[in-house]
Amino acid sequence: MTFAYSRLFAFAEAVFRGMGCSEDHARQATETLLSADLRGVDSHGVARLSGYVRLWEARRVNATPALAVVHETPSTAVVDGDAGLGLVVGPYAMRLAIEKARTAGTGWVAVRNSNHYGIAGYHAMLALPHDMIGISLTNASPLVAPTYALERLLGTNPISVAIPAGEQPAFVLDMATTTAANGKLEILERKNLPAPASWIQDRDGNDSTNPTETKNGGALRPLGGETGSHKGYGLGATVDILSAVLSGANYGPWVPPFVAFLQPPANPVGAGIGHFFGVMRVDAFRPADEFKAHMDNWIQTFRQAKAVPGQQVLIPGDPERLMTEQRLTHGIPLLEKVVADLGSVGERFGLVL
Amino acid sequence: MTFAYSRLFAFAEAVFRGMGCSEDHARQATETLLSADLRGVDSHGVARLSGYVRLWEARRVNATPALAVVHETPSTAVVDGDAGLGLVVGPYAMRLAIEKARTAGTGWVAVRNSNHYGIAGYHAMLALPHDMIGISLTNASPLVAPTYALERLLGTNPISVAIPAGEQPAFVLDMATTTAANGKLEILERKNLPAPASWIQDRDGNDSTNPTETKNGGALRPLGGETGSHKGYGLGATVDILSAVLSGANYGPWVPPFVAFLQPPANPVGAGIGHFFGVMRVDAFRPADEFKAHMDNWIQTFRQAKAVPGQQVLIPGDPERLMTEQRLTHGIPLLEKVVADLGSVGERFGLVL
Repeated sequence: MTFAYSRLFAFAEAVFRGMGCSEDHARQATETLLSADLRGVDSHGVARLSGYVRLWEARRVNATPALAVVHETPSTAVVDGDAGLGLVVGPYAMRLAIEKARTAGTGWVAVRNSNHYGIAGYHAMLALPHDMIGISLTNASPLVAPTYALERLLGTNPISVAIPAGEQPAFVLDMATTTAANGKLEILERKNLPAPASWIQDRDGNDSTNPTETKNGGALRPLGGETGSHKGYGLGATVDILSAVLSGANYGPWVPPFVAFLQPPANPVGAGIGHFFGVMRVDAFRPADEFKAHMDNWIQTFRQAKAVPGQQVLIPGDPERLMTEQRLTHGIPLLEKVVADLGSVGERFGLVL
Repeated sequence: MTFAYSRLFAFAEAVFRGMGCSEDHARQATETLLSADLRGVDSHGVARLSGYVRLWEARRVNATPALAVVHETPSTAVVDGDAGLGLVVGPYAMRLAIEKARTAGTGWVAVRNSNHYGIAGYHAMLALPHDMIGISLTNASPLVAPTYALERLLGTNPISVAIPAGEQPAFVLDMATTTAANGKLEILERKNLPAPASWIQDRDGNDSTNPTETKNGGALRPLGGETGSHKGYGLGATVDILSAVLSGANYGPWVPPFVAFLQPPANPVGAGIGHFFGVMRVDAFRPADEFKAHMDNWIQTFRQAKAVPGQQVLIPGDPERLMTEQRLTHGIPLLEKVVADLGSVGERFGLVL
């Protein structure tokens, strides 16, 4: 079943309004959430709307947060999200980073007391219209075992970097620091398909192809595979530390779960989950026109590289941009399970999808 | 054969003096270079001394550079390295970033017109004694094929992040964005050993175990392996863009080779190779004592995690720190080939190792 973007937007916005979000927050939360559906990251989009509602019902999401800057210097700030939706807290913090960059050249904002913020790329891309480079990191509930570990200590902790170009579309990297984003496993689970070996380990550290192995004490593996998972572990750890140890959020095994049926760990070491945002004005380094002309050259050089027959070299962000064009025109396909789930959410608020 | 650190230091310092470096520059270049030997990154240490000498002989390294800040804002700067040794240009730029961080909270310095800067981690770690987080990136000559490509367009483009702790040793990530650093392949070559499959591709994109395959038109592969090399490609690309497109250095296929017997590409798109450094004052976000206490907790939690029998969970930087202690005490082992090579370098300057 396929739905027009505008229809899903109106529905999700009404649900957020039903939770008590202000008009501005409901619109922002919806735009952030649906950017995932547009970009083809189906796991992080409207399919998760019911998850946010359940967290709100469990009083773990505050629909009317008082977002506050609790510490700052010319180029940095710490934001307390007041247990609000990460979908709203993230853009607030990114806009603050953009303002800092205007005067200081760069802006770096660590966020505590937040919740899941959708796709990392949405936030990073907010910098692009200002001729700025955007960076977006977040920690997430523990599903990943560090190299040699049998315990889950890290989330899929994504890294996104958005870099403006001139005539070419922007470079937008948005990647989990694991072999695969958890959302990919959720999709395999919904479709009853096995995962590739090396993505997942069982409770004893052996390969597993069961996408729900984490429910049996298993774990996702860091990016890098057999001879390099220490690199993915190191990247995921860096994201965790910048997002949470720097901001005063929960880190490592203390990050609260996204699903409302699991309780947050006892004895938290901080507040909520953490994000980290960075913004750099291009012309704090080099005239913007010069930079963008060289970015165009960079992108064209890579895109035109000699490739394996039948393939071509892609620029980070290419598949997601093409998907956005297609879905804005032809609609967003949703699995039956997701449509049924949205139906239940609608009933809760007297809404029809 | 094993050599005391002080003996190698005196020798390398004399070689840099012989090239015409100032006392300060010779000492700095030696300290940067030998930090690789101490940390067990044998490929990037004194084994490369002859490489720097040959670049200087070829007039591609300027032993008396006029290092200059060519652009700046409160939190950013661009440094022109005047074709100097990256071993010297890097610490100059990092110190500038540290100064910026003192007043603006953070400092971000892009560098153009430089040369190979040794190990990324040395530079990042310069931030640690100041209770600052250090970040160090560099591009390098093209050896890596982006996902699906048959051409070498990226270097092994490392990422290093150094984060101070309290009673625990600092967290120091230092990783190539490839399946393996080129230095590891150089070591396999010196020892006549094959590389693991998946590290390297031949000129047609097939797996190869030949560590010198890049000389036959092959390429190193980005971090991530079969199902995830687009992630390593994206990270390596980000390092290239921040290091070179932002600073005005050469990027992608235009990055000049380290080896003097290969000519730099014609029609350069910038000057020399590029680096990118970042420094963040911890207390620009949160009181340093608080941060460091939580870092200690983070480190202890991960180190004590339940592990695969016979293994333990390491913190990034652990192996290199232990290696440093051992080599300061017991000396630095060098392969016969390297000792012979250093002997020739010594003769060039009338020095004995």
